Amino acid sequence: MIPIERVAIVGLGLIGGSLARALAERDVRVLGYDSAPDSLDAAEGEGIVHERLGAQLMGIEAADVVVFALPVDATLAVLPRVAPRLGKTRLVMDVASTKRSIVAAAEAVGLGARYVGAHPLTGSHRSGWRASRASLFDEARVFLCPSSTTDAATLHLAETFWRGLRAGVEVLDAATHDEQMAWRSHLPHVLSTALALTLRDAGIQRSALGPGGRDMTRLAGGPPTLWTSIVEDNEVALAGALDAIEQQIRVLRQSLQNHDSGTTHDFFADGRAWFDGAPI
Amino acid sequence: MIPIERVAIVGLGLIGGSLARALAERDVRVLGYDSAPDSLDAAEGEGIVHERLGAQLMGIEAADVVVFALPVDATLAVLPRVAPRLGKTRLVMDVASTKRSIVAAAEAVGLGARYVGAHPLTGSHRSGWRASRASLFDEARVFLCPSSTTDAATLHLAETFWRGLRAGVEVLDAATHDEQMAWRSHLPHVLSTALALTLRDAGIQRSALGPGGRDMTRLAGGPPTLWTSIVEDNEVALAGALDAIEQQIRVLRQSLQNHDSGTTHDFFADGRAWFDGAPI
Repeated sequence: MIPIERVAIVGLGLIGGSLARALAERDVRVLGYDSAPDSLDAAEGEGIVHERLGAQLMGIEAADVVVFALPVDATLAVLPRVAPRLGKTRLVMDVASTKRSIVAAAEAVGLGARYVGAHPLTGSHRSGWRASRASLFDEARVFLCPSSTTDAATLHLAETFWRGLRAGVEVLDAATHDEQMAWRSHLPHVLSTALALTLRDAGIQRSALGPGGRDMTRLAGGPPTLWTSIVEDNEVALAGALDAIEQQIRVLRQSLQNHDSGTTHDFFADGRAWFDGAPI
Repeated sequence: MIPIERVAIVGLGLIGGSLARALAERDVRVLGYDSAPDSLDAAEGEGIVHERLGAQLMGIEAADVVVFALPVDATLAVLPRVAPRLGKTRLVMDVASTKRSIVAAAEAVGLGARYVGAHPLTGSHRSGWRASRASLFDEARVFLCPSSTTDAATLHLAETFWRGLRAGVEVLDAATHDEQMAWRSHLPHVLSTALALTLRDAGIQRSALGPGGRDMTRLAGGPPTLWTSIVEDNEVALAGALDAIEQQIRVLRQSLQNHDSGTTHDFFADGRAWFDGAPI
């Protein structure tokens, strides 16, 4: 049971669309917008979006909760334009994969007290309205990043919102979130794409891979524009994570070159110990 | 229907054990050996292994087909010791992940005409008898690498053997196989382990990852001894593959540092195009 009547969702891609479906299923009235008329038509046609927002997001002021479900750069661009019309909104959120710059922007435009940055870790490489599904947040982990001035009641409402969608909620500050994501999410994604490009240059198609190689290249199927904005927004932390993995690769190369079987074995044994959940 | 009466399997781990199960299901008599008495007892107790081979693989000469299901280095060690007793064996195979050095060793000990190196691309990170299952080879890809002197009839029997287990068979020479595997299998595996170690050093447990990060670190759970022997046996080709991915990572780092969004976007867009099956 979500104690909210009307939610405006700006962007009906994988996350925004899934959010619309999950809320509509719970009898919340969904006000929707997408820059692609096809997605908006489909969402309205399926009865998921109950009211369309107009050009310039006209009508957004009627929502109790507003969610921007856009790439990082688009979120940063829309916030200052729309903020003046959100005077009565109880809670404003975004769902982008980096949080520091967006939460700072929300504070800068005077939304700090009613803002909570959200990041659902749903991990699909699929994208767009057609990939959306009401169950996307079932048992997913959602990070919530309040601003330095977020009201306690606002944060509580955000927690209630996501828990109502069956997600697990973790509250942390935006800077810590972004630093963590550089390792937990952005590094794996970049590696998957680097592997994809390496295999392409070697003339190997994805269909020629076994189950392991396919798993390792699944993330490379993610949307390029979204990922460009993520890695640009989190460049410094990501650079640190890339330094660290390059160092690990060098350790193995050195042990192979030196025919140092002990160190090579440690490389794989230590990796497996971590996989098996050994204390860190 | 497999036109073979008795198969000896040396090593009852994931692949050897699954082979024993798949053959027993097809009414082939299985002669088995494992250096771990527990595995051998279990395999016999379940009725999968019908006859135990003795110390020094006593009794192996009674098999029509012999399969060594051991790590690369153990396979290289056992071949010269057992070869003199395989005078009547119709087909000798191994199932290790690299093929060049093993096929060369088989030729050197006089088994060339009746030898076919096999590599089932089953891609599990699990290992050991308890992970074995009769369906492991269902629709799996199996590479077959004849020696320079393998008889046509021997190769044909090997193809029949694996197709009888519902695997897809691809015949190629051992050197080409190993070069290909450096990219298709060993590079993804090493990356997965390097990522595991990087996350460990950053204090992040696997349970804190989303679905993408978990996929990217699954291979790191593979058996360390097995993988040590694989990468050592294929060191040169693997070094080339690692060079190539390090170069891809450098491209991204450079574009981020230069705020060159076009190149950063190309990185992800090209990765996705490959994922989507664009012609190479």
